[in-house]
Amino acid sequence: MKKISGSVTAPRGFLAQGVCADLKKSDKKDIALIYSEVPCTAAGTFTTNVVRASCVDITRQHLANGRAQAIVVNSGNANACTGEQGWNDTLQMAQITAQSLDLDPHDVVVASTGVIGVNMCMEKIEKGIRQAAANLSPEDGHKAAQAIMTTDLVSKEIAVEIELQGKTVRIGAIAKGSGMIHPNMATMLAFFTTDACLDNICLEKAFKQAVNQSFNMISVDRDTSTNDMAVILANGLAGNPVINDVNSDDYKLFQEALQTVAVTLAKMIARDGEGATCMIEVQVKGASTQENARQIARSITGSNLTKAAVFGKDANWGRILAAAGYSGVEFDPQRVDIYLGEEKMAENGMGLAFDEERARRELEKDPVVITVDLKSGSQSAVAWGCDLSYDYVKINASYRS
Amino acid sequence: MKKISGSVTAPRGFLAQGVCADLKKSDKKDIALIYSEVPCTAAGTFTTNVVRASCVDITRQHLANGRAQAIVVNSGNANACTGEQGWNDTLQMAQITAQSLDLDPHDVVVASTGVIGVNMCMEKIEKGIRQAAANLSPEDGHKAAQAIMTTDLVSKEIAVEIELQGKTVRIGAIAKGSGMIHPNMATMLAFFTTDACLDNICLEKAFKQAVNQSFNMISVDRDTSTNDMAVILANGLAGNPVINDVNSDDYKLFQEALQTVAVTLAKMIARDGEGATCMIEVQVKGASTQENARQIARSITGSNLTKAAVFGKDANWGRILAAAGYSGVEFDPQRVDIYLGEEKMAENGMGLAFDEERARRELEKDPVVITVDLKSGSQSAVAWGCDLSYDYVKINASYRS
Repeated sequence: MKKISGSVTAPRGFLAQGVCADLKKSDKKDIALIYSEVPCTAAGTFTTNVVRASCVDITRQHLANGRAQAIVVNSGNANACTGEQGWNDTLQMAQITAQSLDLDPHDVVVASTGVIGVNMCMEKIEKGIRQAAANLSPEDGHKAAQAIMTTDLVSKEIAVEIELQGKTVRIGAIAKGSGMIHPNMATMLAFFTTDACLDNICLEKAFKQAVNQSFNMISVDRDTSTNDMAVILANGLAGNPVINDVNSDDYKLFQEALQTVAVTLAKMIARDGEGATCMIEVQVKGASTQENARQIARSITGSNLTKAAVFGKDANWGRILAAAGYSGVEFDPQRVDIYLGEEKMAENGMGLAFDEERARRELEKDPVVITVDLKSGSQSAVAWGCDLSYDYVKINASYRS
Repeated sequence: MKKISGSVTAPRGFLAQGVCADLKKSDKKDIALIYSEVPCTAAGTFTTNVVRASCVDITRQHLANGRAQAIVVNSGNANACTGEQGWNDTLQMAQITAQSLDLDPHDVVVASTGVIGVNMCMEKIEKGIRQAAANLSPEDGHKAAQAIMTTDLVSKEIAVEIELQGKTVRIGAIAKGSGMIHPNMATMLAFFTTDACLDNICLEKAFKQAVNQSFNMISVDRDTSTNDMAVILANGLAGNPVINDVNSDDYKLFQEALQTVAVTLAKMIARDGEGATCMIEVQVKGASTQENARQIARSITGSNLTKAAVFGKDANWGRILAAAGYSGVEFDPQRVDIYLGEEKMAENGMGLAFDEERARRELEKDPVVITVDLKSGSQSAVAWGCDLSYDYVKINASYRS
């Protein structure tokens, strides 16, 4: 697998654009469009929040047949909690996009992100979509990545290349997410494109697993949002023999590459967590089940006290163990070892006399790596988060204004 | 019911003291002792964390027979994650206390709060306990309240008086808790005394319900601790006819008074949340079950985004609805009304055109009252929390050092 430049327009046959439709107070880009020249196999995963934006429900319906050809996204307005008008506005976004690109509206994926509870200005949206459609380019994946940002400090994109049966297959992706990030999709948007040829069953399985090991393992603030989604379009233009067996080598190679792309983006999101000064990587080992390892890892990345201690460069391993303890998983605290980077802080649930200076140096790294060994099995998991700083509070105390 | 002055020493026959044993870096009090002149009926509730301090397990054992006569507490060291030595140190605290007061060690309740993972200096502890025991006084409940504080800014105490069958019955209590506060007991200690005469079944039921509607409904940071406990001692010296029927009027009067005391202390804890500038009270109405109402109320008080918005005086009701949505409770978002104080912000899941200035005034009150009406039943619940400020981060970035 090789990292290549570009993102969603790196795979063959994909065009994109990002424009400014004045939905935000600033003059930043706020409408993104991604388009494949040919119909695609498609799959998606969505927020688990009971309160969902209409784009989540409508996109889920549109993807029910496993195909799509375009993705339209607006930032600046989540179009959530906006009732019937919000629902109609989402349908209209699909219709305008379909009309501009000569598609069936059901082949359009719609996503929104931004403030909750305010109706959208459809005049601006329509103008923006038409402008993006008229300027689609195989070079402008980066502009699409910029157009989906909200409080993100950096745009997030990546592309990779693998070889399958002598054919070059590419995967590209963009993502956004900074606050309101928590396992199970939270104001997190990610859009993947690939020119790989594979059937729906293989695409869905590969994508679901990739999302589960990446976006579902990051946490910024435990707030799960109304609008999250991750979607992948596969247009088959690489010309590789169709991947239709989840036990095949080609499937494994593709899934591995897809998961690497997803994990890379997920880590970018964690690192760019609102107000974050560093990323935190939590490795849980020696668990009896993988689910237990996942749950403990996410409980630690979600602990305000642990996050604040990392921000303060305070080697407070007791908070790490306490966060594992309230994860809901049963385990024997008296077997647990805890490491901060290379430094062993606790053994068998008890503190060791560690070197404060070396512990501090581990806390000055980015990422800060915390390892928890339960010594009760062979299963493991990794989760990513970030520290809790003054700036998180600052950003979220005045988001709407 | 009448509020009276004092706290744990207000009921007849209770003595207390708080002393400084140099367990903290500052010269603040750190050993509290509460003693009843006669044996008491006793009950307790404890943290649900898998990682528990030895005092939690040992006190649970001591209360298994439903009786106790003294409570010893140290602050400055949680004696958690301290292995066998920690266990032995807790046993020794009970023994020293028992010896000083001529009791059986099993009649002593032991509690600790402070830093995790550091062994205690038993020499200092012993000296402190003996000093407190030698100076027990019916006037010094206040000193005990001070001695159990950690990052608390104010000591928390209350006493009330009710009349049962012509006899005056008193209930007094002290509590501590500031950070690491979350439903199901989290570095939260509360000690109740009463001179009421009642049997174990009635005491346990009344206390469990009071804790459930008070301490289990507050959240500062969703971090559940290793050391929480709430304990009540009832010595019967009021001379009221024994309460032995949970359906009697006397039981109801006593339970109501006990619950009022517990709710008052719980609100004091929420208001004194680390870094808090105001208390948040969340009222959930119209739920189909009380458990649903409780879960939604606690999800909102636990939302970092909601807490930061309240700190920033930003009427971001969308975050409130989103936090309800990820509570785990199924409900119809399109029926939900949301109020900020008197101001209706959203109706049927949609934003209303509200007066920003009036909303801001509601956010400047203390407590800030958020009401969520699900309009799907008749059950309700109230939860308390606080806003998320820069100071929360500051306090927790440097707690250990």
